Amino acid sequence: MHGTLVRPAPAAPVHASRPNRIVPVAVVGATGYAGGELVRILARHPFVRIVGLVGRGASGEPLEGRQPHLAGAGLAIESEVPSEAEAVFIALPHGAAVETASALVDAGTTVVDLGADFRLHDPADYPTWYGFDHPRSDLLARAIYGLPELHRAELSELPGSDGPAVIASPGCYPTATILALAPLARAGLIADVVIDAKSGVSGAGRDPKPDLTFSEVNESVKAYGVGGHRHVAEMEQELDLVGGRDLGPLEFVPHLVPMTRGILATCHVRTTRTVEQPELDALYADAYAGEPFVRVVDAPPATKHVLASNEARVHIRALPRTGRLIAIGVVDNLVKGAAGQAIQAFNLAFGLPETSGLDGLPVAP
Amino acid sequence: MHGTLVRPAPAAPVHASRPNRIVPVAVVGATGYAGGELVRILARHPFVRIVGLVGRGASGEPLEGRQPHLAGAGLAIESEVPSEAEAVFIALPHGAAVETASALVDAGTTVVDLGADFRLHDPADYPTWYGFDHPRSDLLARAIYGLPELHRAELSELPGSDGPAVIASPGCYPTATILALAPLARAGLIADVVIDAKSGVSGAGRDPKPDLTFSEVNESVKAYGVGGHRHVAEMEQELDLVGGRDLGPLEFVPHLVPMTRGILATCHVRTTRTVEQPELDALYADAYAGEPFVRVVDAPPATKHVLASNEARVHIRALPRTGRLIAIGVVDNLVKGAAGQAIQAFNLAFGLPETSGLDGLPVAP
Amino acid sequence: MHGTLVRPAPAAPVHASRPNRIVPVAVVGATGYAGGELVRILARHPFVRIVGLVGRGASGEPLEGRQPHLAGAGLAIESEVPSEAEAVFIALPHGAAVETASALVDAGTTVVDLGADFRLHDPADYPTWYGFDHPRSDLLARAIYGLPELHRAELSELPGSDGPAVIASPGCYPTATILALAPLARAGLIADVVIDAKSGVSGAGRDPKPDLTFSEVNESVKAYGVGGHRHVAEMEQELDLVGGRDLGPLEFVPHLVPMTRGILATCHVRTTRTVEQPELDALYADAYAGEPFVRVVDAPPATKHVLASNEARVHIRALPRTGRLIAIGVVDNLVKGAAGQAIQAFNLAFGLPETSGLDGLPVAP
Amino acid sequence: MHGTLVRPAPAAPVHASRPNRIVPVAVVGATGYAGGELVRILARHPFVRIVGLVGRGASGEPLEGRQPHLAGAGLAIESEVPSEAEAVFIALPHGAAVETASALVDAGTTVVDLGADFRLHDPADYPTWYGFDHPRSDLLARAIYGLPELHRAELSELPGSDGPAVIASPGCYPTATILALAPLARAGLIADVVIDAKSGVSGAGRDPKPDLTFSEVNESVKAYGVGGHRHVAEMEQELDLVGGRDLGPLEFVPHLVPMTRGILATCHVRTTRTVEQPELDALYADAYAGEPFVRVVDAPPATKHVLASNEARVHIRALPRTGRLIAIGVVDNLVKGAAGQAIQAFNLAFGLPETSGLDGLPVAP
Repeated sequence: MHGTLVRPAPAAPVHASRPNRIVPVAVVGATGYAGGELVRILARHPFVRIVGLVGRGASGEPLEGRQPHLAGAGLAIESEVPSEAEAVFIALPHGAAVETASALVDAGTTVVDLGADFRLHDPADYPTWYGFDHPRSDLLARAIYGLPELHRAELSELPGSDGPAVIASPGCYPTATILALAPLARAGLIADVVIDAKSGVSGAGRDPKPDLTFSEVNESVKAYGVGGHRHVAEMEQELDLVGGRDLGPLEFVPHLVPMTRGILATCHVRTTRTVEQPELDALYADAYAGEPFVRVVDAPPATKHVLASNEARVHIRALPRTGRLIAIGVVDNLVKGAAGQAIQAFNLAFGLPETSGLDGLPVAP
Repeated sequence: MHGTLVRPAPAAPVHASRPNRIVPVAVVGATGYAGGELVRILARHPFVRIVGLVGRGASGEPLEGRQPHLAGAGLAIESEVPSEAEAVFIALPHGAAVETASALVDAGTTVVDLGADFRLHDPADYPTWYGFDHPRSDLLARAIYGLPELHRAELSELPGSDGPAVIASPGCYPTATILALAPLARAGLIADVVIDAKSGVSGAGRDPKPDLTFSEVNESVKAYGVGGHRHVAEMEQELDLVGGRDLGPLEFVPHLVPMTRGILATCHVRTTRTVEQPELDALYADAYAGEPFVRVVDAPPATKHVLASNEARVHIRALPRTGRLIAIGVVDNLVKGAAGQAIQAFNLAFGLPETSGLDGLPVAP
Repeated sequence: MHGTLVRPAPAAPVHASRPNRIVPVAVVGATGYAGGELVRILARHPFVRIVGLVGRGASGEPLEGRQPHLAGAGLAIESEVPSEAEAVFIALPHGAAVETASALVDAGTTVVDLGADFRLHDPADYPTWYGFDHPRSDLLARAIYGLPELHRAELSELPGSDGPAVIASPGCYPTATILALAPLARAGLIADVVIDAKSGVSGAGRDPKPDLTFSEVNESVKAYGVGGHRHVAEMEQELDLVGGRDLGPLEFVPHLVPMTRGILATCHVRTTRTVEQPELDALYADAYAGEPFVRVVDAPPATKHVLASNEARVHIRALPRTGRLIAIGVVDNLVKGAAGQAIQAFNLAFGLPETSGLDGLPVAP
Repeated sequence: MHGTLVRPAPAAPVHASRPNRIVPVAVVGATGYAGGELVRILARHPFVRIVGLVGRGASGEPLEGRQPHLAGAGLAIESEVPSEAEAVFIALPHGAAVETASALVDAGTTVVDLGADFRLHDPADYPTWYGFDHPRSDLLARAIYGLPELHRAELSELPGSDGPAVIASPGCYPTATILALAPLARAGLIADVVIDAKSGVSGAGRDPKPDLTFSEVNESVKAYGVGGHRHVAEMEQELDLVGGRDLGPLEFVPHLVPMTRGILATCHVRTTRTVEQPELDALYADAYAGEPFVRVVDAPPATKHVLASNEARVHIRALPRTGRLIAIGVVDNLVKGAAGQAIQAFNLAFGLPETSGLDGLPVAP
């Protein structure tokens, strides 16, 4: 018998010996979208003090020059990470974080990387999916995939006896997809799955590109990355891990939708045996009981239901007409799909209450 | 050997004996969205004269009271279809067209119904999918499913020796889906298919509903009709027909996307045998050679590429990593997915050049 | 000489004798948009306990049935305001709050009304602007217009010796407009002003109306209420008050813009004398020094800069070419323009720190 | 006494001696947004043959590589304007057209410039507003401001005895504004005017810029160009001309709205004398009687009412409460505000029916 997929949220901080304190943190990449969300949340986090922001722009330039909405934070961009930072969040394009992160970890600082540079455990995956040879397979071995619903125990034991290490915060698509499918994978129910995902535009980052202008995106939807989006690698790694077997290559097709935020992953599943709705309901209720940020819902969720919050919503439905299941996961790509999730993992690693700084309700309409 | 899926667009009108003339037509449901598109196109159709519009509002009320953008048409709403109309387009909610259409056909008028009331040939499907017993199985037997790419010959022989009949214009989702999949179905290549579709909001019609307000739809995407959307019935009917065998129940999940117009159907296909890209390219090129409104494209199409036009775009791609295919179809749900397609079928039925009134290029950005 | 427009934000709670405590509050109209925002903020307010929600739906129905995004609040709709509530927020259409509010006030409860029913001091204005005779001119006399930047002292003395009373929370357009113009009005600089405002759709409320569907609003902008929008009455009342003279009827034309949230008021001013930028800068800096929620900015602000926050941004600019000034104010219509502002005023009235529950930074992109 | 503002649309082509024929034309800047609209319309123009497209990209590259929606036109980009072109439309950023246009005119070709390089008659305005010295004041003197509603006679006499010349097609803001105000200006009724305009994003062109990405523009509105937008120069030139007197510097503040197309100009007018609604109605009806593309409407128009068409809508309203007038003009910035208007002027210049190629009804919803 299998028990729960994940451990319930601990009633008390794991590191009982460490009372809540103010952790000095820094953000690298603070002028991007994920970086802005990190600042937005960390600036109001009760147990954190932001001691440094690194990003585009001259040292000393007010952050609001690049992030006008964050003027109220009263922060400025610096050229270097201050040494007092005990944890550093890095929000850079893939490939750009390896060097900075490695230096920080070597110097004894905990790194939470929001990019892909430490998500894949197998060094051989980097040339395949990201086009570069990873120089630090030692760090890949020590990195924790920062999805608390799957790896809470490992995250809670950071920093361990072997010193500080790297939290590799999951991608936005993998977060929505893995949360939707993990209970099925763990129960060995997935025979075959098609993942058809829809994303808002902010997931593509802040750099202006010809196909990301308002005029091109508005009133239009399209598929992209059809041949194989990089995020599929971490989906396969984690779903194989939770299920204890190789599901084979996953079909994953993302779509660009005319909205700024939000990811919805629609997972069309053929099961290994007949399964009916009550069993599914129990499976998912059990899997996510006690999870502070995953809500199993009876109706297909809209991305707007989780906007600007760290909440994920998951919906599971047996389709008697076709014999398939549909599993849907939604997150705000910049919060549970990026900055919020990184802070959730950081909270665990530093023995802080897991929901610290993350208890804001979604913003709608 | 298979030949082409459809006949090439005829170089000359089929009814060579009938020179182009001005056909008097009427529109029922002219105050809705599909009805508005009918008027927009028909008012500039070179071989048509609009002799009557029926819709909400008092008889004699200018159309622009309900359709402000159509003021330039200079038309008014009437309470009845004038008898001089040789063809009547009906754009009403499902179930509402049966009576009006039947009376018109019985009186010798050709009906083009944009709703679902005559799309399914088997009367038994109506209680199952639409919740009513169809009173005119005789008309169902005579109705032609108005997708010219599959039924051009039958449409071109209307009105035949047995008098005028009904053209059942396809739904928006089925148009995008069937056009994407028909070449595969005909070639016997579909072992299994998941259809994941994305639609703009205008497909839900004009009536204000709580979940269709701007504030609810904007910045959000969600699945709906998960248990079984009605449009799947006509997809199954037509794909089984073109393939000559029962594909079984199709998995079809539509999504509501924050845009006004456009449908994109992403079809994830497992094939009956290994098939590579060159064979697919040839299959689709052959299938749609000569089609005036279907364009096979090399890159995943965006709905904006066909906005406000009668064009459909189809993309086919072998995915070597997973062994699947992906077939994508896009249309403007109100044009090739509704009004434009109805007029295309009407053109065929009345021996007019098939593209009459429909040659406008898409509007972008 | 004039000194500051408003008193600086108090360093300590005004009612030093009342330590911060947990105030039991209720919300009437919790199923609308402003009501949802009240719940979103109050559920995380450190000094508040929500003891009752009244709205559409059966008593005991979970709030999430009507406000899916608020599932995390774990609240239900009730049929009556519980007597333990010390403050009741009312978010109902104009005219609908008078009776409920009156009964509550008569029973000794403090009411914060987000509608217009107590905003105008002169009873004669109600038949003119709102089409009904106000039955409680005694309450109009005691009601405080809840714009803390103008009426902080009066709000801070609530509830006073004459018992609890009514806070009339300002409308969204007036908030943006008055904050943009108050320093000029107080300095006697306004000779003539044209207020051209732009609003997101949520300001029109939650009821579905034909012209508020996504398909109608998207990709369109239009003026409305051209003849005289009701909000002009409170603008005139407050600007005349702050300036100490009658500015005469104000020109105010609102526009509906395809976005969900946000108000931008562009105020085109002719001045009573020549005034240059440095004087304006000093005037505004002085006026809003110490204000926790008003930020004077050097560049024209975007509504997105304040999204989902209680912040207002104000921009003042001399236009040498034409000799005019332009003053721009932006707020999130549902926060500083509704729920947030109501809570700010409540905080003052109950001696709580003014920013309690309202310190979230804006959400962008 | 004044008669009509403009001459009614001529019942027959002005150049009766030149029967309709096929005019060979070329487009420079065909890969931008205005250029795309030129191609969309010209490709279906009954009296035009496109003989050349110049734009970004290698010579011979299919246009659809840059304008995917125009695949149906079957055209390619060339590196040079073919000499057979009798008219060349130029859609380039300001400053970039002078040289090309001059060479073409000198060679005897008629140029329709959609940019600003020939709109201002006074060479001294170019350094002031556009930052360069205009090298061809001789061409400025011969250029016709291509607003047919004001300059139909001059356009109809092109090409005249002094050889081909330049049509300077108006800017998008000026088109909406001048059409809204011209009847008032001509009648001498404008004492003072504030022009507050709202634009979709496509008006900013196709180049990706940081503040034009979807994520930045969506859910936001802001003012820009507050200090003095360049378009005000042509508004002043034309309104002074039509009114026969100097109105002085105009207050004009544009705003960026989250939509792709559409311009709405709200003009707040103080009049030189009291004027009531019936006089205004007569004034506008008279001014635009017979105009094929200007519609005077009784309710405030939405930009969606003219989307994708060459129609302009104008609304005039006396506001008794304030004693002002409000005049509103809407156009599609890429059609009547750019490509459509250029073609309308070209039609006049070449003796073609004025509405040729431009009779499509607006597209809504």
